[in-house]
Amino acid sequence: MAFDWIDEQAELRRRAGLVRTLRPRPADSPLLDLASNDYLGLARHPEVVEGAVRAARTWGGGATGSRLVTGTTALHAELERELAAFCGFESALVLSSGYAANLAAVTALAPHGTLVVSDAGNHASLIDGCRLARGTVQVAAHADPDAVRKALRTHDGPAVAVSDTVFSVDGDAAPLAALAGACRERGAGLVVDDAHGLGVLGDGGRGAAQAAGLAGADDVVVTVTLSKSLGSQGGAVLGPAKVIDHLVNAARTFIFDTGLAPAAAGAALAALGLLRREPERAVRARAVARELHARLTAAGLEAVRPDAAVVSVRAPSPEGAVRWAADCRAAGLTVGCFRPPSVPDGISRLRLTARADLSAEQIERAVRVIGETRP
Amino acid sequence: MAFDWIDEQAELRRRAGLVRTLRPRPADSPLLDLASNDYLGLARHPEVVEGAVRAARTWGGGATGSRLVTGTTALHAELERELAAFCGFESALVLSSGYAANLAAVTALAPHGTLVVSDAGNHASLIDGCRLARGTVQVAAHADPDAVRKALRTHDGPAVAVSDTVFSVDGDAAPLAALAGACRERGAGLVVDDAHGLGVLGDGGRGAAQAAGLAGADDVVVTVTLSKSLGSQGGAVLGPAKVIDHLVNAARTFIFDTGLAPAAAGAALAALGLLRREPERAVRARAVARELHARLTAAGLEAVRPDAAVVSVRAPSPEGAVRWAADCRAAGLTVGCFRPPSVPDGISRLRLTARADLSAEQIERAVRVIGETRP
Repeated sequence: MAFDWIDEQAELRRRAGLVRTLRPRPADSPLLDLASNDYLGLARHPEVVEGAVRAARTWGGGATGSRLVTGTTALHAELERELAAFCGFESALVLSSGYAANLAAVTALAPHGTLVVSDAGNHASLIDGCRLARGTVQVAAHADPDAVRKALRTHDGPAVAVSDTVFSVDGDAAPLAALAGACRERGAGLVVDDAHGLGVLGDGGRGAAQAAGLAGADDVVVTVTLSKSLGSQGGAVLGPAKVIDHLVNAARTFIFDTGLAPAAAGAALAALGLLRREPERAVRARAVARELHARLTAAGLEAVRPDAAVVSVRAPSPEGAVRWAADCRAAGLTVGCFRPPSVPDGISRLRLTARADLSAEQIERAVRVIGETRP
Repeated sequence: MAFDWIDEQAELRRRAGLVRTLRPRPADSPLLDLASNDYLGLARHPEVVEGAVRAARTWGGGATGSRLVTGTTALHAELERELAAFCGFESALVLSSGYAANLAAVTALAPHGTLVVSDAGNHASLIDGCRLARGTVQVAAHADPDAVRKALRTHDGPAVAVSDTVFSVDGDAAPLAALAGACRERGAGLVVDDAHGLGVLGDGGRGAAQAAGLAGADDVVVTVTLSKSLGSQGGAVLGPAKVIDHLVNAARTFIFDTGLAPAAAGAALAALGLLRREPERAVRARAVARELHARLTAAGLEAVRPDAAVVSVRAPSPEGAVRWAADCRAAGLTVGCFRPPSVPDGISRLRLTARADLSAEQIERAVRVIGETRP
């Protein structure tokens, strides 16, 4: 039969302890959440929810078409202006997801004849962007500006380096200023995915590019997601106006996709407003991460020093990680569990996210549970 | 400078009359809309809007993480059950867009060693899925089961044929039953994108696969979008439970993307409920399309006979199409304008969508304006 080969793959996954299953959560889960990417605790903030509600009532359930046909509303335009202004870039383009934004940015900025230098630890969406791009791809060692410099030297003509600003798995930051320096030596562009930096890094959460002094640079393009710190859904590309115009004309995941739903645009816009008024949320998310790391390390666990709001803790094996996460859950705590093939180095981890709205008691409880359930 | 090459491309586009710009619409546009994909007129239906509102209030502005971490809610599970039941498939998997659903289905079902036979007229998202897939791709002539048969014969081992059910540009339907026959001769799977069929074709809008007697077949996988007939945002893959389980474990655009926003899931669920109660909406959309076609043809225009709710009208040139669409707009009518590179054959068109809620007066007005503004 047509899909018989799937049975074999399922059996291999079962034997390797790598089966993934969906676990629907209820609306009123009693579990303490250290697994979501709701870094600022805004997804259920009343203003964010009402931003979604107001937008749905004003604009309807969907955008009804591609942004180039009927899918661009004044709400999308307002969100784009606000995102660009907040992060310090000339222009912004909103897409239906961060994944789509990364596919758009990388494919449109790396046409035939271009060199793309991609960090070895990049997110799946950047990797898929590189694979779809018509340019030539070179993978550079993780967080290594010299490796990027060396790769750029092999090519004459247009080039871009592509990197996460904060890597999802270990929560470590890319050396942005040094990367930009390496790119500038060769006149190359720099495209960075600030999914885990927006709302957490930079002044008042303005992101990793702002923190590195790169906001508004004419050779830097930043992608962001609306689904993490902004508590919504969607993604955006920020950069010089001419780059954004180019994406409108050339990026397939923009041109051939329905526009972001009004409710998601409205929620993200409300979250941006909150973040402007309450810049301390970003500071608090970073402080919670540092505290989690210090306490876990003091408890003898192997955790990576966090550069943003992700704290990664080593697990002994994929099965050990799964059991550890399950034991945490049984004790009332949700943590992320990253296993192959979601980790670049084959090392399984617990992944904790430091929400700005975690209380001292919650942090203490989380650390206690993780320590007590250690395999 | 890094992005100087963009200026040249912008200039080439300008000279070719192919510049695309975003035109934000207001919430209370007075224009008659024959350009959106809101086939059943549900995007602004009160029940759909309240579905979005209720979901945002219950679940928050975003899903907060990957569906495999914190991003799966009971709401997503309910939507998946309802979609599968409505369309007659064992299982469903909801993603953040139809584009993501197509990338997920094609890449996960066409691993290394697989042959993918792709219709020459397929949507960009299916083409990108083929490009990302590790299998070998052969492009088959448009809507030609014999071409698919011939391509499948060149390969031993797992294979899938991939096709839109209704092609977006001309609104013509794929010969699904014959395609399934060609696939079955070789034990190949069939993956079809029913973006423009769901809500329009089949009993009560159950889609093209149901209309062709293929619903629930163990060798057929259907992708749908929630952003057209269902007036929301998102996409889904429908098929045998084991195929859906495989996607949960293997599809990168599922695993590494934030779950669909609750408001979008709630809006789609409400639209599905409406469609169950008011199956005549699907019948009406098809009737409006036939009427538009008949009247346009009677007026001497060259229009493709519609198989669903899309009516395509030939334009003399890209510039002519742009002028025609602009003149329609000036006369109060929004129509789609498809030009290279959005059309596979280089022929520019006006693209009209036949909404189920268009009145006789609106249809008459639309035909009159299109005729009077003809270049």
